[in-house]
Amino acid sequence: MVKIAVLGYGTIGSGVVEVLETNRDIIAKRAGEEISVKYILDLRDFPGDPHEELVVHDYKMIRNDPEVDIVVEAMGGVEPAFTFAKQAILAGKHFATSNKALIAKHGAELIAMAQERSLNCLYEASVGGGIPIIRPLNSCLTADVIEEISGILNGTTNYMMTKMSEEGSDFDDVLKDAQKKGFAEADPTADIEGYDACRKIAILTSLVCARQVDFEDIHTEGITKITAADIRYAKAMGKRIKLLGCSYRIGDQYCAIVAPYLLDEGNPLFGVNGVFNAIFVRGNMLGDAMFYGSGAGKLPTASAVVGDIVDIVRHKHVSITMEWKPDKVELADYRNLRNRYFVRTTADAAAIEAAFGEVSYVQAEGMDDELAFLTEEMDGYAYEAAAGKLDGILQCIRVR
Amino acid sequence: MVKIAVLGYGTIGSGVVEVLETNRDIIAKRAGEEISVKYILDLRDFPGDPHEELVVHDYKMIRNDPEVDIVVEAMGGVEPAFTFAKQAILAGKHFATSNKALIAKHGAELIAMAQERSLNCLYEASVGGGIPIIRPLNSCLTADVIEEISGILNGTTNYMMTKMSEEGSDFDDVLKDAQKKGFAEADPTADIEGYDACRKIAILTSLVCARQVDFEDIHTEGITKITAADIRYAKAMGKRIKLLGCSYRIGDQYCAIVAPYLLDEGNPLFGVNGVFNAIFVRGNMLGDAMFYGSGAGKLPTASAVVGDIVDIVRHKHVSITMEWKPDKVELADYRNLRNRYFVRTTADAAAIEAAFGEVSYVQAEGMDDELAFLTEEMDGYAYEAAAGKLDGILQCIRVR
Repeated sequence: MVKIAVLGYGTIGSGVVEVLETNRDIIAKRAGEEISVKYILDLRDFPGDPHEELVVHDYKMIRNDPEVDIVVEAMGGVEPAFTFAKQAILAGKHFATSNKALIAKHGAELIAMAQERSLNCLYEASVGGGIPIIRPLNSCLTADVIEEISGILNGTTNYMMTKMSEEGSDFDDVLKDAQKKGFAEADPTADIEGYDACRKIAILTSLVCARQVDFEDIHTEGITKITAADIRYAKAMGKRIKLLGCSYRIGDQYCAIVAPYLLDEGNPLFGVNGVFNAIFVRGNMLGDAMFYGSGAGKLPTASAVVGDIVDIVRHKHVSITMEWKPDKVELADYRNLRNRYFVRTTADAAAIEAAFGEVSYVQAEGMDDELAFLTEEMDGYAYEAAAGKLDGILQCIRVR
Repeated sequence: MVKIAVLGYGTIGSGVVEVLETNRDIIAKRAGEEISVKYILDLRDFPGDPHEELVVHDYKMIRNDPEVDIVVEAMGGVEPAFTFAKQAILAGKHFATSNKALIAKHGAELIAMAQERSLNCLYEASVGGGIPIIRPLNSCLTADVIEEISGILNGTTNYMMTKMSEEGSDFDDVLKDAQKKGFAEADPTADIEGYDACRKIAILTSLVCARQVDFEDIHTEGITKITAADIRYAKAMGKRIKLLGCSYRIGDQYCAIVAPYLLDEGNPLFGVNGVFNAIFVRGNMLGDAMFYGSGAGKLPTASAVVGDIVDIVRHKHVSITMEWKPDKVELADYRNLRNRYFVRTTADAAAIEAAFGEVSYVQAEGMDDELAFLTEEMDGYAYEAAAGKLDGILQCIRVR
């Protein structure tokens, strides 16, 4: 019998308890032992909850209880999660978390602490919710130099982009709808500004580099500037706009960016709609692969956390190999990335061509007061130089 | 330094050697040790090949050499692969293979033999080529009861279906084109009759059941009866025809089938075209997930084999947990599966409705000599009963 403590009894934490109960027998069979929740840490009480009696308010009870083998953190945020994680590992306990903010900031450090003690620190649910991606990167794609890892990493913004595309609605209306349906939070900043996707691509890039990528170093643009007019043009081109987190290998460096991109139908991410997420990986031997699924949600995310718990039970006395050292990676400047750009402007064709040379014009119904065009493929420096020569730019979206 | 022997120096075997060479440094870093090929077993000689001197013709040299830690089998076929695998494991060597025929037939037995000796028998490349699916099923989706696992498991037939759909060409022409391009073999039977997909869904279903599913028990239909007319109807309905291998949980049983299906745009498998493969998984907690990538090809498949080799080097003294016992699963009759059917017939509407009740007629250009319709959802028994009452059925394709 393995005993665990769940920190945080919100959506994910209660989901973990629910998954462990619903699939108790099959999980015990796969883990080789029964798994039982001994404590639930939360500031709140839960009168009437079937697990009411497991709720404690003082983390010391968990930390000091030698019966607790695994601490499962589902509180979110860097603190006090980080302090609790360190204390758990120092007390000889394994650690599993769904917390991308914690792992993006302190993943390498926690992994090193755990490995020094033959313990495990697992975090499958921190990226892509229920989608298996961390473990495949760690233990499947080990024969490849990863040339690219890119993904639709945020369900809220993908739901919004899908709605805007399906209904031609404006950003603000779609945001209100998403909030009403519970797909966006009251304060949606972290999602719509790309901060959430940024932390996730930082984690994935760290795994690909085997070293620490600081999320603050990643150029991040959200979707707040995307309009119904952009969607109309996208449709006219047979493309869709998606918020992507991308990492590319350029020479010996990696380069990461979070931004909206125009994708065409041939791209495997094109068909990923609604709250679904997907992560595209290109290896130098493997070629293209993609992992698709529910990027968020109580039970899918909890399923990934419980998958980590099972893996820990299977590796109680040995650390699972994980290459993520705390030394910092210097990312290449994102302006080194080459792509075409979609640009809308109030300037005339002569001014456009004076700035950008040859371009492909794009037409969409009812957009008579402006011109829109696709540039040739160019890097970010060249784009900025050309754009500096053109007045009246209304919009610019990268194309891949 | 870990020493391996590669059995079979054909496409996959030479790919394994190439991947190990191309990515030597990063693979050594991830495995924790250098990996070196000591022998290549083949009946042929390879004069002028850079690895000419590693080629041997007698398996006994490999089996009896205590320096060989891992035997990597890439010969294909059940024998002599099975005999060599058993001898390797009995000699205390780990075993990795890309051979679906071997694993579908003897996987459980080889795994049991390896586990009794704290060895590993891995076979990631046997399903889905480069797509990580075996390891994710074994070590990621462990919190879920798997309700469904279905996939486009054969690149040849998916290439053919895609070509037929894009060009409106006939089956025979597309087959010739695929053979010319090297996407189909001179004897294409195993692909086009669904036998290859059948072995792969048998392996996946075994893993889901944790017991042995015999591929002979799986109802298997190929794509040889699919015509340009069917494709025309599919397009008129906004659907695509794909050869799928499917397993569904029905009560406490599983039910498996290989057959062409009509998919609509909302299905994640809809956009999987050309030689790509994808495997869809539905868990009772996870919801929907999909794994996409190159289902075949020298380097993608070899990448998966080398991923297994790395995993073995990381687990030299311990068996990786794998639930696949040799006792046999009794599958439920595939006629229990419920779906709509697309039917083409020379009969008239009165006869159709007398047999099937209410149906939805489907029209496609130039198909004036027949009627086509979609049934309501029904199980296979009900379909057979109704179809028995209708003369002149030209075609029947399942819809999902």
